[in-house]
Amino acid sequence: MKPGDLPAIHLPLGFRFSAASAGIKASGRPDLALVECVPGTTAAALFTSNRVFAAPIEVGREFLRASRGRIRALIVNSGNANCATGSTGVRNCKGVCSAIAKLLQIPPQAVFPSSTGIIGVPLPVEKITPQTSDLVASLAAADEAVCDFAEAIMTTDTRRKLASARFTAKNRTINLLGLAKGSGMIHPQLATMLVYLFTDLAATPAQLTRLLRNTCNETFNCISVDGDTSTNDTVLLMASGQSGVDLRAAAVQSKFQRALLDVCRSLAEQIVADGEGVQHVVRLKIEQARTRDEGQQIARTIAHSLLVKTALAGADPNWGRILAAVGRSGVPIDPRQVNIFIGRELVCCRGQRRTFPAEKIHAEMCRPKYEIRVQIGRGRATATYLTTDLTTDYVRINAEYST
Amino acid sequence: MKPGDLPAIHLPLGFRFSAASAGIKASGRPDLALVECVPGTTAAALFTSNRVFAAPIEVGREFLRASRGRIRALIVNSGNANCATGSTGVRNCKGVCSAIAKLLQIPPQAVFPSSTGIIGVPLPVEKITPQTSDLVASLAAADEAVCDFAEAIMTTDTRRKLASARFTAKNRTINLLGLAKGSGMIHPQLATMLVYLFTDLAATPAQLTRLLRNTCNETFNCISVDGDTSTNDTVLLMASGQSGVDLRAAAVQSKFQRALLDVCRSLAEQIVADGEGVQHVVRLKIEQARTRDEGQQIARTIAHSLLVKTALAGADPNWGRILAAVGRSGVPIDPRQVNIFIGRELVCCRGQRRTFPAEKIHAEMCRPKYEIRVQIGRGRATATYLTTDLTTDYVRINAEYST
Repeated sequence: MKPGDLPAIHLPLGFRFSAASAGIKASGRPDLALVECVPGTTAAALFTSNRVFAAPIEVGREFLRASRGRIRALIVNSGNANCATGSTGVRNCKGVCSAIAKLLQIPPQAVFPSSTGIIGVPLPVEKITPQTSDLVASLAAADEAVCDFAEAIMTTDTRRKLASARFTAKNRTINLLGLAKGSGMIHPQLATMLVYLFTDLAATPAQLTRLLRNTCNETFNCISVDGDTSTNDTVLLMASGQSGVDLRAAAVQSKFQRALLDVCRSLAEQIVADGEGVQHVVRLKIEQARTRDEGQQIARTIAHSLLVKTALAGADPNWGRILAAVGRSGVPIDPRQVNIFIGRELVCCRGQRRTFPAEKIHAEMCRPKYEIRVQIGRGRATATYLTTDLTTDYVRINAEYST
Repeated sequence: MKPGDLPAIHLPLGFRFSAASAGIKASGRPDLALVECVPGTTAAALFTSNRVFAAPIEVGREFLRASRGRIRALIVNSGNANCATGSTGVRNCKGVCSAIAKLLQIPPQAVFPSSTGIIGVPLPVEKITPQTSDLVASLAAADEAVCDFAEAIMTTDTRRKLASARFTAKNRTINLLGLAKGSGMIHPQLATMLVYLFTDLAATPAQLTRLLRNTCNETFNCISVDGDTSTNDTVLLMASGQSGVDLRAAAVQSKFQRALLDVCRSLAEQIVADGEGVQHVVRLKIEQARTRDEGQQIARTIAHSLLVKTALAGADPNWGRILAAVGRSGVPIDPRQVNIFIGRELVCCRGQRRTFPAEKIHAEMCRPKYEIRVQIGRGRATATYLTTDLTTDYVRINAEYST
């Protein structure tokens, strides 16, 4: 893959990237990725809500607390989740951080770790450490290095996931770059999803945390491939301050917020579209809810219904399954107030069948991306959610005997 | 199919059965089923928790209320759910009940209706009414008629589902017979599942309701194929009183309770085993929970995890997926207290990998039925739950373009 395949990268000042192959993946593909940040870089992170979390989650949390949200490097490995590996896992994770810290001459607590891959297998530190000096030596602030990083964090992903934005404020240019991986186990509350966001704005860790939380609620927490939540999910936002512009000014803040939302929305869509076995990405829009939460609850129930997801796989306008999912969502809807649209066509009116051009709707549902709207006649709030179809390929990918 | 394929049927006194083909199913297979009960028969029913419920659910509730739990007949059609059909659907349902009532010379409110099949298509009453006189004429208290009934209520089921029990009390014999249908959309809170239970014990509707609720919580509400909840689910328990024995005696009550639990457990297992595309039925046993509810919550999360269900399909001892599901269940477990057994083998000890004989466990997981035990080290309560694997066949069955 060439950087040319991707949209323009607006590289924020203050970050250098590299990648390497350490042989953690049996395929020999790149599986180590490093970022170095300039001194003064602040950071905020959100982690999986799973009670079973991996060693790097524990270590990342501890290091962010110890460094008060200042980080100088990010080290990621793919091919091994370092999860369910006990105290040895934590020791291994810290060992990798220390090796990087020594080479960069920074404290170990300034190195933020991530892992993704198989659960329950010891992290092969002996394969990782020999690669660290090459990793550091090849650090570069260049599009190609960014793409190498994005590729090295992939597991079952079939595509690299990048998005970036640029805006001007106070006569300066501010850049935002997002890199992500994730294709199975995608679910609200973050799921085997790693997202790294880099900006050259200046901001405090507390400001970054607030922004990140709001943005995640509208993006990464509104997508679903299979409803499972991983043990390793991490979203990390880093701000180098190298643009010379501070987030505090109101005008800057609203522009950055929009840029962050755009980048995260794009990454969320890329993750869903690359879901295992996915043929169709469907934007669910729940309208006329009392509150956004209530709308989300309905959207989530539809998004995870196996019967709906298999109907989407067959491009089958089986609105009865959608209506049944609305009915069991826990929201006290009145079926006689429910309208369902597939694309622009009304297929269920006031909870009842409506004659519709089945072939036209089938054609709409054959598109790789389309919208299903559900009106519930209870209020004015709207919620959106991205879901996917469930195909025999998803089952095949996940049923292979391969522990 | 012959009655001989099935276990002995202990036919309760006071019920006659029949079936017919009305052409509601395009295949021409039997799709109408009738039961007549003697005067004095009492009944209790539980219905789907889905807010979107079918016309027969509405009518059945109304008629049971109006008749104060006395019914004289049960009319079931398969091939059409009569759901999302509005006021016409209710009118059609009552029309069918009236036709039966007229022939049996009983009030329409004494006829209990059920439907199962496609959602959103008007019930073809014009096909049903011409069959009613034949249905009534062929009523019989015979094993063959019972089997015909069990077959006529099937939709995607591949097998009839029957279970029965017999016990003696006060020197009399009491019989219990259960007939069920259901294979997709199976989930707690009843899901496209119809269950009819017949006994010749004497009991009040209130006694029957209490017994039925307790038994359902331990059986039909602890099974899952795909997590969807249907719009038409019904469990109906009828007592003819023809054995001459009353439920009130304590000794009778405990014996009947056990018989009811046995019959319902057997039907629940038959439903799960006949799940769409199912190759393996897995009994999940959550041990060392603080409460049964907490254990159920964990069991349910594992039972519905697509990653677990696909691993089961591949007979893959991927305990990391089970552990991750336990972790996201919402119960505040400590991963270091979690042990996981597949069959008799401990595969995860205190939240960590344990060397295990992979081939032996793979062989265990190739069996059509086996057990997975999870200990969580929080208390003494145990919960069990039946789940299934998720196969490409499930997806194929449900993705066919067939609205």
